[in-house]
Amino acid sequence: MSTQPITATLFPGDGIGPEISEAVKAIFKAAGAPIVWDEQHLGKTVDERTNSFVTRENLDSVLKHRIGLKGPMTTPIGKGFRSLNLTLRKELQLYANVRPCFSLPGYKTKYDNVNLITIRENTEGEYSGLEHEVVKGVVESLKVITRGASTRVAEYAFQYARDNKRSRVSALHKANIMKKADGLFIECCREVAERYPDIQYDEEIVDNACMTLVIDPSKFDVLVMPNLYGDIVSDLCAGLIGGLGLTPSANVGANGLALMEAVHGTAPDIAGKNLANPTALLFSGVMMLRHLGLHDIAEDIHKAALAVIAEGKYRTGDLGGTATCSDYTKAIIDKLQGTG
Amino acid sequence: MSTQPITATLFPGDGIGPEISEAVKAIFKAAGAPIVWDEQHLGKTVDERTNSFVTRENLDSVLKHRIGLKGPMTTPIGKGFRSLNLTLRKELQLYANVRPCFSLPGYKTKYDNVNLITIRENTEGEYSGLEHEVVKGVVESLKVITRGASTRVAEYAFQYARDNKRSRVSALHKANIMKKADGLFIECCREVAERYPDIQYDEEIVDNACMTLVIDPSKFDVLVMPNLYGDIVSDLCAGLIGGLGLTPSANVGANGLALMEAVHGTAPDIAGKNLANPTALLFSGVMMLRHLGLHDIAEDIHKAALAVIAEGKYRTGDLGGTATCSDYTKAIIDKLQGTG
Ligand SMILES: CC(C)[C@H](C(=O)O)[C@@H](O)C(=O)O
Ligand SMILES: CC(C)[C@H](C(=O)O)[C@@H](O)C(=O)O
Repeated sequence: MSTQPITATLFPGDGIGPEISEAVKAIFKAAGAPIVWDEQHLGKTVDERTNSFVTRENLDSVLKHRIGLKGPMTTPIGKGFRSLNLTLRKELQLYANVRPCFSLPGYKTKYDNVNLITIRENTEGEYSGLEHEVVKGVVESLKVITRGASTRVAEYAFQYARDNKRSRVSALHKANIMKKADGLFIECCREVAERYPDIQYDEEIVDNACMTLVIDPSKFDVLVMPNLYGDIVSDLCAGLIGGLGLTPSANVGANGLALMEAVHGTAPDIAGKNLANPTALLFSGVMMLRHLGLHDIAEDIHKAALAVIAEGKYRTGDLGGTATCSDYTKAIIDKLQGTG
Repeated sequence: MSTQPITATLFPGDGIGPEISEAVKAIFKAAGAPIVWDEQHLGKTVDERTNSFVTRENLDSVLKHRIGLKGPMTTPIGKGFRSLNLTLRKELQLYANVRPCFSLPGYKTKYDNVNLITIRENTEGEYSGLEHEVVKGVVESLKVITRGASTRVAEYAFQYARDNKRSRVSALHKANIMKKADGLFIECCREVAERYPDIQYDEEIVDNACMTLVIDPSKFDVLVMPNLYGDIVSDLCAGLIGGLGLTPSANVGANGLALMEAVHGTAPDIAGKNLANPTALLFSGVMMLRHLGLHDIAEDIHKAALAVIAEGKYRTGDLGGTATCSDYTKAIIDKLQGTG
């Protein structure tokens, strides 16, 4: 099958971002992925049109191609700058943050049976940015939950479950305390659940869910939740399988607009030293290929990387190995080409 | 040493509450703990003076004795009742919720090196109860952070660390997102930290801390944080050592007022069947004895219970055993009396 090349936006990002992006590009090329990259770099100064280092051109690139891949970015500290990651999510209305998390064969952690998807509302909740000091020493921070955003992320979760042959969606909440806000969230989930009779639905209080997750993560399947719980729970889940260096994510918006993202940090201490682990960005790229319907190439890359990780000969320092980023990249390419 | 008897309030609670309370009373008696219990039961109807099933007499009992122990309670659902647990915490201004969490020798989980204390702000934050629907389908929920409450819980944490020969306090927050609210919380922690130069201080973003906790909980010592993070993180930590059936808690207020509490549920399915595990309530009682300065008796009870758990012969169903609540209680009493 010959495929028309597809242009995708690439934000290499900061710190280790550029080197792990190079690794992903090389692996995609070796796998024959028909992707042309539109590389985008953030502005060096604040763009007046976005009030952020994210420029209008950056946003337009994603809006045009409707698909992108993003490395880690550091928001300059101290001057009240809007987080770059959040600016992208909000400006592009990427309303669902999807983080699959599964145990990697051969890479041992305390858990060997993790196979979870966290789906996080990505635009509102505790991330509203609405805060003020009422009187000196008294700060209010607004959590905003809307029917619209709750319903669309719930729909995404149920549709994801159906498309990916998952049997159950659990909504995490704290509606025993935030009766109105989280109450609205689960009300929306319940309404959507009625339209997906083929998918089981249940609800769990978020604190209790975190306890269950560390005792036996196999108790869950697809999890859907408001923004901040998603932030916390997805990191917890990443920890179960070895950390953010191994877990991909997708930020999905309307009409299939999607920006896949490695959610780990920029690791300035090892940047430029060829020591970084490109796995999270690579797996995010695999999610991107699947999203584009390029399932065979996605599967090839995924299998090759899993095989290299399982064999254990080429592992980067964060996984206890001594391989460089290039060693690991080359090992995956060799696997793809049947020479490794 | 002969000690004057001390009167303490006891809320046996609902479900398994009464039977685990009986177990604790029997063990205390066998250990010679000089405690006289003032048993308090919640009202069957809402008390107008408290707008809750918690009666004025309930509150007055704790205010008079300044010390209490509390079993699990279920808040009647569906009519907008205030949570009973929260009513007690708020009305009595029990501002610090302290949950020690350590691996139990002989009771195997995936983690064998847990030795943590979570200290949770217990009166405000996301638990303000202030919520409203702005327009249909748009709910706001207020998180309230104040300098006063943040400073007093930070002081509690540092003083706790010093008194208990702990070397480090870590503040968990999400000040990269809730810059003002969580920003104020950590500002207060930093100010208090300056007054405790003998205790190390650091800060960690709560999502990242949850990842670290599941990878290697020994990275932390004393954790202090706003209310909701404390709720989530303390349950996560409980999961690391086997669940809420094993973890005690103390709610501490001004001038030593304290209400110790088992934070697990009422387990209605096994209530009245002599199957419940009284450990969390017993260890909460041990915290109570320590709080009263009765260290020797506290130590005796704690050691006896740890020994029975370690030996593994008498374990309740939740820990994979077949012992009844009375079997386990008797085994602890036998240990205390040197006959077990
Ligand atoms: C970097 C930070 C703003 C971000 C978040 O809080 O969402 C990160 O933790 C994540 O999970 O993607
Ligand atoms: C029962 C519930 C209201 C309570 C809370 O949210 O604080 C519980 O989860 C706890 O941790 O004590």
